[in-house]
Amino acid sequence: MSINDNKELRVGMVGYAFMGAAHSQAWRTVNRAFDLPLRVRMAAVCGRDEAKVSEAADKLGWDGYVTDWRELIARDDIDVIDVCTPGDSHAEITIAALAAGKHVMCEKPLANSVAEARAMVDAAAAARESGIRTLCGFNYRRVPAAALMRQMVAAGRLGVIRHVRAVYLQDWITDPEFPLVWRLQQERAGSGALGDIGAHIIDLTQYVTGQRITGVSALTETFIKERPIPAEASGLAATGNGQAVGQVTVDDAALFTARLSGGAIATYEASRFALGRKNGLRIEINGSLGSLVFDLERLNELEFYDGTKPSAEQGFNRILVTEPEHPYLAAWWPPGHIIGYEHSFTHQMRDFVQAVAEGVDPHPSFEEALGVQLVLEAVQSSAASGSAWTQVAQPTVPVAA
Amino acid sequence: MSINDNKELRVGMVGYAFMGAAHSQAWRTVNRAFDLPLRVRMAAVCGRDEAKVSEAADKLGWDGYVTDWRELIARDDIDVIDVCTPGDSHAEITIAALAAGKHVMCEKPLANSVAEARAMVDAAAAARESGIRTLCGFNYRRVPAAALMRQMVAAGRLGVIRHVRAVYLQDWITDPEFPLVWRLQQERAGSGALGDIGAHIIDLTQYVTGQRITGVSALTETFIKERPIPAEASGLAATGNGQAVGQVTVDDAALFTARLSGGAIATYEASRFALGRKNGLRIEINGSLGSLVFDLERLNELEFYDGTKPSAEQGFNRILVTEPEHPYLAAWWPPGHIIGYEHSFTHQMRDFVQAVAEGVDPHPSFEEALGVQLVLEAVQSSAASGSAWTQVAQPTVPVAA
Amino acid sequence: MSINDNKELRVGMVGYAFMGAAHSQAWRTVNRAFDLPLRVRMAAVCGRDEAKVSEAADKLGWDGYVTDWRELIARDDIDVIDVCTPGDSHAEITIAALAAGKHVMCEKPLANSVAEARAMVDAAAAARESGIRTLCGFNYRRVPAAALMRQMVAAGRLGVIRHVRAVYLQDWITDPEFPLVWRLQQERAGSGALGDIGAHIIDLTQYVTGQRITGVSALTETFIKERPIPAEASGLAATGNGQAVGQVTVDDAALFTARLSGGAIATYEASRFALGRKNGLRIEINGSLGSLVFDLERLNELEFYDGTKPSAEQGFNRILVTEPEHPYLAAWWPPGHIIGYEHSFTHQMRDFVQAVAEGVDPHPSFEEALGVQLVLEAVQSSAASGSAWTQVAQPTVPVAA
Amino acid sequence: MSINDNKELRVGMVGYAFMGAAHSQAWRTVNRAFDLPLRVRMAAVCGRDEAKVSEAADKLGWDGYVTDWRELIARDDIDVIDVCTPGDSHAEITIAALAAGKHVMCEKPLANSVAEARAMVDAAAAARESGIRTLCGFNYRRVPAAALMRQMVAAGRLGVIRHVRAVYLQDWITDPEFPLVWRLQQERAGSGALGDIGAHIIDLTQYVTGQRITGVSALTETFIKERPIPAEASGLAATGNGQAVGQVTVDDAALFTARLSGGAIATYEASRFALGRKNGLRIEINGSLGSLVFDLERLNELEFYDGTKPSAEQGFNRILVTEPEHPYLAAWWPPGHIIGYEHSFTHQMRDFVQAVAEGVDPHPSFEEALGVQLVLEAVQSSAASGSAWTQVAQPTVPVAA
Repeated sequence: MSINDNKELRVGMVGYAFMGAAHSQAWRTVNRAFDLPLRVRMAAVCGRDEAKVSEAADKLGWDGYVTDWRELIARDDIDVIDVCTPGDSHAEITIAALAAGKHVMCEKPLANSVAEARAMVDAAAAARESGIRTLCGFNYRRVPAAALMRQMVAAGRLGVIRHVRAVYLQDWITDPEFPLVWRLQQERAGSGALGDIGAHIIDLTQYVTGQRITGVSALTETFIKERPIPAEASGLAATGNGQAVGQVTVDDAALFTARLSGGAIATYEASRFALGRKNGLRIEINGSLGSLVFDLERLNELEFYDGTKPSAEQGFNRILVTEPEHPYLAAWWPPGHIIGYEHSFTHQMRDFVQAVAEGVDPHPSFEEALGVQLVLEAVQSSAASGSAWTQVAQPTVPVAA
Repeated sequence: MSINDNKELRVGMVGYAFMGAAHSQAWRTVNRAFDLPLRVRMAAVCGRDEAKVSEAADKLGWDGYVTDWRELIARDDIDVIDVCTPGDSHAEITIAALAAGKHVMCEKPLANSVAEARAMVDAAAAARESGIRTLCGFNYRRVPAAALMRQMVAAGRLGVIRHVRAVYLQDWITDPEFPLVWRLQQERAGSGALGDIGAHIIDLTQYVTGQRITGVSALTETFIKERPIPAEASGLAATGNGQAVGQVTVDDAALFTARLSGGAIATYEASRFALGRKNGLRIEINGSLGSLVFDLERLNELEFYDGTKPSAEQGFNRILVTEPEHPYLAAWWPPGHIIGYEHSFTHQMRDFVQAVAEGVDPHPSFEEALGVQLVLEAVQSSAASGSAWTQVAQPTVPVAA
Repeated sequence: MSINDNKELRVGMVGYAFMGAAHSQAWRTVNRAFDLPLRVRMAAVCGRDEAKVSEAADKLGWDGYVTDWRELIARDDIDVIDVCTPGDSHAEITIAALAAGKHVMCEKPLANSVAEARAMVDAAAAARESGIRTLCGFNYRRVPAAALMRQMVAAGRLGVIRHVRAVYLQDWITDPEFPLVWRLQQERAGSGALGDIGAHIIDLTQYVTGQRITGVSALTETFIKERPIPAEASGLAATGNGQAVGQVTVDDAALFTARLSGGAIATYEASRFALGRKNGLRIEINGSLGSLVFDLERLNELEFYDGTKPSAEQGFNRILVTEPEHPYLAAWWPPGHIIGYEHSFTHQMRDFVQAVAEGVDPHPSFEEALGVQLVLEAVQSSAASGSAWTQVAQPTVPVAA
Repeated sequence: MSINDNKELRVGMVGYAFMGAAHSQAWRTVNRAFDLPLRVRMAAVCGRDEAKVSEAADKLGWDGYVTDWRELIARDDIDVIDVCTPGDSHAEITIAALAAGKHVMCEKPLANSVAEARAMVDAAAAARESGIRTLCGFNYRRVPAAALMRQMVAAGRLGVIRHVRAVYLQDWITDPEFPLVWRLQQERAGSGALGDIGAHIIDLTQYVTGQRITGVSALTETFIKERPIPAEASGLAATGNGQAVGQVTVDDAALFTARLSGGAIATYEASRFALGRKNGLRIEINGSLGSLVFDLERLNELEFYDGTKPSAEQGFNRILVTEPEHPYLAAWWPPGHIIGYEHSFTHQMRDFVQAVAEGVDPHPSFEEALGVQLVLEAVQSSAASGSAWTQVAQPTVPVAA
């Protein structure tokens, strides 16, 4: 039975932790906020621990659950696989799902290595021939203020872009007693702050500027080399088991300078040791005609400096991005009634559902996500070679749709 | 069949416009975010226009719909009536629902007159004897930062409260061509900015301080006396029909000074003509030991000035109210991942469901809501008599639970 | 010897405390920052305590000192008398100085009563016939951002003004042990927060809007009724003598609603009990086309909301008022290099010197200052009669030059 | 005649442009604001253009002027030489002045090359034997909020410092038609944004943290390669002569990552192309116990995050640095009355005069300024070699006094 008969889009999600909860809220909400040609059915969630996944299915509102992702992929009544696992299993699940004819939404970063990412790009390209759609979940593109940034840059409001400065700062592992969760293990997470949050600012700045990072000089640091083995974890919170310690095998922070394809120069910083910064993704772009500033902790706002106005009235204009004219906002509340983090996922689901229904490719494509992976690789390579300037290999397609 | 048998709480909602959409999102989400003893079922929504209510039921996710609220109340399979209509029908629907043994959540302001509000209080008091619960929807009490304000005041962090300054500023009728929607008609809305948004700051300041407004001196103004008759309206947006005009019979803005029961003095202002202020509810409280500032347009933040710290380190501390220790936040995302306007309703539903399950009264009670109504009445009376100082009549129960 | 022969303007200042120090810095600086037709000579300072005034003359850079203001006025080599004493001596000194043919700059509020203020207005009017100039020192008019507000309102950028909300909040007497300095004594200061800081926001809002306050409804409060007799005081700081207490005879806080001559409605608040607000003069004006916000604690900034811009780009624009196009700024540093509180006095001296040289009247005139006094009187009268609406008597000249 | 006989400190200043004006205001004010053992006499100013220097002497309040700095140095009645010229003459004037037994205050950067800076350090060291004092004018150290940062770091409030991120952003040459002023010529200015404003954030972060930059990886860029030859310039403003163009021989922007001696990692950026940033020096420091943020455009404020407080009350605390307990503030106005850019110079003069009187060395010493120069050199070297990691040579004395 095809999608178009029942007008349903049946989703199976792998993973049910932080990302799984956020995705669930978005799948549940998307048809309530937006008028869409397809209705999402939250068919099944998958996890290895039956007790826990059963509880999650019930709590998060999935029709059922399975304990083996292969089983999920094999089901006829699933149209979409939503991959919310740690990065080490993205490639295997995604490639199998595509082979089984499922549309795939895969969390970011696309993979833990460039090789895996390339394989996923190839699989997506092959599946695209059969009308299968893929999207990598760089959800911040769909924060309305970020989408507005992209619109304003594309409309030429900034002129020639001179500077990008991007930080993503958190502080949740500042305490040396915070345990060695999977996000601190290279074999699970691929990298540390770099891949987890640095990937977001790499993607977002490339998306917003329409330019690619072409070269980098990088520095990484692991401030705390050993941490307690965790007893249990939930979301980003966890406690140690009080007995053993293990090696931290990822970066605590990554810094790099960069050049972009349009001539801009940039600084990037990702850290989980910036005390007081909880979800401090901040991007500033300076152009020859204007500047833009975005701060995820105030995600309903966008600051715009319009250099074309009379000098006496120039200034950073705090746009409250809650007007119906703003991206995605007509679906929500009256002006001034703010939305939150989770809405970026609802917007992502909206665009994904729409793209599937229309038979077009949503963004970011796996190729774009590979582009991010290639930057991550160049950053690690530069950091490993005394910050030497390192060219970034490029994927074969444009960055932005 | 009692609630406790099926562990379901079956809700019927009357009205499906702006408030109805917000409540729907909250009813849908509450069990997904919180662990509760009862599971909400969105049983039916009610509206007079069958085509529209049918569409709303489908869009907002209600199991069914009816076109007569009396029918909704009469149904056996409904436990809760959620009243989201304009103020002129609150009393009739609510009293009938209570008589039918339904728990009632009623939007604010409780009614369009003190007389109606008193009748509702009496009905609620009678129903309480049978274990029936009531709540008036001053949802901003459940914005986490506002709930935190209340906690901090109650914990004595502000000492003796000296000053309250509260504004609720919007700008959506600044344009004289904006049409005469129901919120601008006295017979539908009761009053203008005063009852619509002024009621919120009256309730919230009384709640947060634990003090009642005892007297007021007020001034109201209607800047634009005539407006086009509306063709159609949606949310707070509307367009004129281009042909006829009608009288604006409510205030565009209301200002008053006040004294509170604990010795504080206060200024209040509600306006829909404050250009640039979209949902500008701002409250500042100054006490002998500290101060607090809250701004609804940045509802994830609370500013706290701690006057007990060393002088060289004093300052307004921007608390990002997204920590698991903060009210309601443990249910949501990691620190720094902000929530939005709609979450205040989800929190309201959470507390309501919990209270029903536990057999206790949730807040704000109808008595408290009557207290707000009595302030509104005193404000209108003072404004009508040259700003003469006007004592506020008091309900017979404490302001805060 | 006339001014025009030696191109000097010889100043004698009465009082050398907080205001005297600020004025001295401004007199000393004015010719260094601005090109003016006259050169200021700081001829003599006057104070009753010879040891202290001698020390002040030396510290603040005056050529000499006297201990009797009558002596100062009698000197031939003084062109200007600058009155920086408490309000109870303003009228006597000023009227005598004018009679002696001196130009007079008098600190605000003009006097401690309307009767005194009227006498000063009459004296100024008479002296004006002989080319004598007078100015009342509402210095905040010359903060560049405030002057820019005035320009923008006058240029019609706000359209019809709907709302004014003005607060001047300080916290320096929050501590009940803070002693009974002269500013807390009715016979010296006239009133408390009302005349000291409330006068500033009355003048500034009238100046900026070009409208007069026509009626008020007011409330005043004295939170702490008794305080220690002071041992010594300096600036706004003081300590008690540990032995005796006295009655506080002025208001600690004053609140009022108002109507302005152009149809705007307003709230005003002056308090010295707003913990955390150090010099919190904040004015917001909402018009039919735009809004402006000014905060004295960030006096180099002005927020402007331009309602005529496309909806998607509207927002409060933080103008950094440090451009050479901004009022007074061409005399100072490059853009972004901020100025401070004291510069408002330097600008006042600049305009005063320029006006004397050109033979025109500087603003604010004594008539305008009387206008402020009449508002203060109406506020006190309303507060004394249960907040009854009280018409404000009007001076006979326009508010703004 | 020794200083101690007449209690005067007689200053001769070389240069009278932007820096000269700022220094003049400070020399004029320092004894009026602070009680000091010596009284400053503004003896003479020096410039090559007699008409202009004569006018400047009159305008800025110097007793006289000379047209040859050698003449100034030769005078018996001068105790201090204040060097406010472009960087290419710092070394020659300073070394000669020291040889003549004058105390020297020299503007930053100390010199245009490390070689010159080393010669100046040697000259200062030799002169120190004779009790001669030297100071390099990194004036931002004396902005009270910056001085408070240093105090708080030194007191351990931040714990172990993990991150420094520092930017100094301006936009005054964004326009390609802005002419080729001396600050854009390598032979006059040494470098561009790097030495002019980058030097400030290098010095300030080293000062505040008490750590030295040990290695860098850098990137520089000149966006506009040719500019019009200027007709005339004043402050930072200038106009082209409309006829000829010349090569820009300095960087428009400089970016670098760095490691500090205490284990912190850092990003630095200096640019004059950051549209909308007028004097945007912003420093954030994250430590294991707390964080600090400073922004020169709001120089009266310091944000402090205290990680040792209870989680529910943590946040960035906006300290209004205007209390008498704060560095230098007791000399100025009551709390909340802000000061400006120029006060940093007054504070510098205060400490310099005090040090001369006490016979101790003020900071920053020439050795510290050489330390900055060595960082600049390493940055340029790294930028010239593909961002290769470059060790910073170290001066032989501690960074901070």
